[in-house]
Amino acid sequence: MQQIELRKDILSANEDLGHENKMLFARKGIFVLNLMSSPGAGKTTLLERTIELLKDTFRIGVIEGDIATSYDAERISAHGIEVTQINTGGACHLDSSMIRKVLANFDLDHLDMLIIENVGNLVCPAEFFLGEDAKAVILSVTEGEDKPLKYPLIFRLATALIINKVDLLPYVNCSVPRIVRDVIGINPSLAIFETSCTSRQGLDSWKAWLEGKIHKKKETRLNT
Amino acid sequence: MQQIELRKDILSANEDLGHENKMLFARKGIFVLNLMSSPGAGKTTLLERTIELLKDTFRIGVIEGDIATSYDAERISAHGIEVTQINTGGACHLDSSMIRKVLANFDLDHLDMLIIENVGNLVCPAEFFLGEDAKAVILSVTEGEDKPLKYPLIFRLATALIINKVDLLPYVNCSVPRIVRDVIGINPSLAIFETSCTSRQGLDSWKAWLEGKIHKKKETRLNT
Repeated sequence: MQQIELRKDILSANEDLGHENKMLFARKGIFVLNLMSSPGAGKTTLLERTIELLKDTFRIGVIEGDIATSYDAERISAHGIEVTQINTGGACHLDSSMIRKVLANFDLDHLDMLIIENVGNLVCPAEFFLGEDAKAVILSVTEGEDKPLKYPLIFRLATALIINKVDLLPYVNCSVPRIVRDVIGINPSLAIFETSCTSRQGLDSWKAWLEGKIHKKKETRLNT
Repeated sequence: MQQIELRKDILSANEDLGHENKMLFARKGIFVLNLMSSPGAGKTTLLERTIELLKDTFRIGVIEGDIATSYDAERISAHGIEVTQINTGGACHLDSSMIRKVLANFDLDHLDMLIIENVGNLVCPAEFFLGEDAKAVILSVTEGEDKPLKYPLIFRLATALIINKVDLLPYVNCSVPRIVRDVIGINPSLAIFETSCTSRQGLDSWKAWLEGKIHKKKETRLNT
């Protein structure tokens, strides 16, 4: 019981600070995306393609979450984007206080979108609200069609699902229609994209969805 | 500080019960493998191939760990193997008490090997000792070559690394020599296998390694 209570306290404290982050982003009119997936589903590569597609139109910042190394931040930095690496040192997810601490690294008055790449993990990051407007989860077709039902929480809480690496479909045993059917059962309002960063399939739809979100966030910016 | 102390307590209690499990397995002469990986790296399929290769020679039991569903247990059960499904209901890893509770489902006096398929997660399961003789981690080449340095703990604690889905190497950007170089830097005594459950590459070496471990465990069985 003591464990359960403490866990509730941790999640509740995280939620409170997440809402403080969210209010700050609302005042600045910044659209914030929490990008999550298993290790190796293609978060950083999709992020690089997304930056290439949007950086001439919007001012983008990136927070990279990893247990160790700064490889991902180096990849993003090469695109001329403001990026901060958080190394969790072992922790399996980012939390709202980690985000809070690094926000001073960004010029929030001149940012349209902040993308937070979470630690590669299909379980724990889903539970920790960071202050984002939307959670996007990437599922690679190489992971198999059974993942939505086996890891339901992250798919239930997501606003967008990116079914990635579809160029590999001829070589793996994975039914995209079954993924779509199962996730719609869990989360009927999910926006679903089928993408490949190799063939560039689906990237235009993904770009258009983000543009809509960024514009809407600007329009509803709080003047407080 | 309170959080850190409680975390230590949880890990320490888990470790104690893990050692009780280990003593039980030692008395029974059962080789116990804790099989871990990201979601979709191929744990269940490798397990099915392993069972096919060894079930005529050894008596095998399987514990399936998943957050939700019993799909994996059904797949294993179809091979005529004793299997118990643990649904963690949200928890991101198995722990030693969960294992303890389901051991009554097995006839431990007539078992040579118990394989525990952990929850798909490259982070949290590594921290929780279940009483196993060896941890095996599967890394699919579709996940990319940077994973050992980005998720070092699980590779440091593993006895065996299975680099899986090597049949997909022509279609993905992944250097197996770099994986091998990096993991040897983290864990020089790691046994490394390169496998494909599609082409069956590497399965004979994996089988031979397991046979050696099972025989050794039988020979060193405790008579207490």
